[in-house]
Amino acid sequence: MAILAFDIYGTVLDLSSIGIDRSLLKEWRSAQLEMTWRSSLMGLWFDFDEITRISLRYAMNKIGLAADEEEILRKWYGMAAYEDSKYICVLGEKHSIYALTNGTRRSIEEALEKNGLLRCFKGIYTAENVKKYKPSVEIYGGFLSWIGSVDAYLVSANPFDIYGAKNAGMRAIYINRHGLPIDPLAPPPDHIVTSIADIINLSI
Amino acid sequence: MAILAFDIYGTVLDLSSIGIDRSLLKEWRSAQLEMTWRSSLMGLWFDFDEITRISLRYAMNKIGLAADEEEILRKWYGMAAYEDSKYICVLGEKHSIYALTNGTRRSIEEALEKNGLLRCFKGIYTAENVKKYKPSVEIYGGFLSWIGSVDAYLVSANPFDIYGAKNAGMRAIYINRHGLPIDPLAPPPDHIVTSIADIINLSI
Repeated sequence: MAILAFDIYGTVLDLSSIGIDRSLLKEWRSAQLEMTWRSSLMGLWFDFDEITRISLRYAMNKIGLAADEEEILRKWYGMAAYEDSKYICVLGEKHSIYALTNGTRRSIEEALEKNGLLRCFKGIYTAENVKKYKPSVEIYGGFLSWIGSVDAYLVSANPFDIYGAKNAGMRAIYINRHGLPIDPLAPPPDHIVTSIADIINLSI
Repeated sequence: MAILAFDIYGTVLDLSSIGIDRSLLKEWRSAQLEMTWRSSLMGLWFDFDEITRISLRYAMNKIGLAADEEEILRKWYGMAAYEDSKYICVLGEKHSIYALTNGTRRSIEEALEKNGLLRCFKGIYTAENVKKYKPSVEIYGGFLSWIGSVDAYLVSANPFDIYGAKNAGMRAIYINRHGLPIDPLAPPPDHIVTSIADIINLSI
């Protein structure tokens, strides 16, 4: 029995499923992450839904796209899970499953519910709890305090998240669906898999 | 008489002067900033020269470029000042000029010296002093403590730097050489100019 804390956006939920222009999605995601980092360094707090809206506007301006912001946001909140995310529920039969996410509790619960996954999660820990985004030490440390254990795995497809978790004393499982090169400068993940299904066979 | 604290990379020194492939420079600069933000959030410290080297390697890998890393780094450290940076010395006749920079003291002193500007600076304050990068509250606050005044201007061509300075209680002059749109969501700069020369005519 292990404690598995899943990152949500980009790990459980597939950003590319929202079906918008690729270059817009790239600029949007990049601006979204940049805003989380900068605001946390400045000691400011904007929740992730607010950052999602602001960064979309920024990205649309940047690439000169005139589109319906509300419609794009509806697509974002209708994001589909990766095919292999269904194995989270299989993992839940043996392990304790949590969400450890930058997202707001409200949006994460809704998205997991829509994808039939909410019932497989024992709890949701969000950046809202510490008002600091990943990879700040506070969010991973806050999660460990909350569950009352220092022995937990972050499961993420975002390399910066893996680095952040290892830096804060968690163990980490890296979901490398696209066979990307591993950052040789960051502490290595404890396990690397290409699908959530592969976690079932790990000795954890 | 005002206190003017100049950002260096991208404000006094012209990154595009190093004469490397544009897409490499873009990826490199982006990775460089991202590393400053992420490491500061993780409570880790790598000095800016180290980050410059690591992020160059990352950017070269990302765009699949095989080139001589050392040669590119030599170009980085041979960066030329913007044409209008010479007016810093004119401003120095009336105002107190400082550098407020992510860069290492050693590299900043060398680069300013090579460009004949070092003599115009009264002092250099770097991220090394607080082991946190811009836009963390600590670097701007540390500068204000160091000069013993809360009344100082940051002068920068980097919008995130302007936001950071305003957030930490400094005043700010935004050098908008390329006529970029002003971020409507951030606190507005106290002054916007298109050249360092224009600061001479401001009532500060």
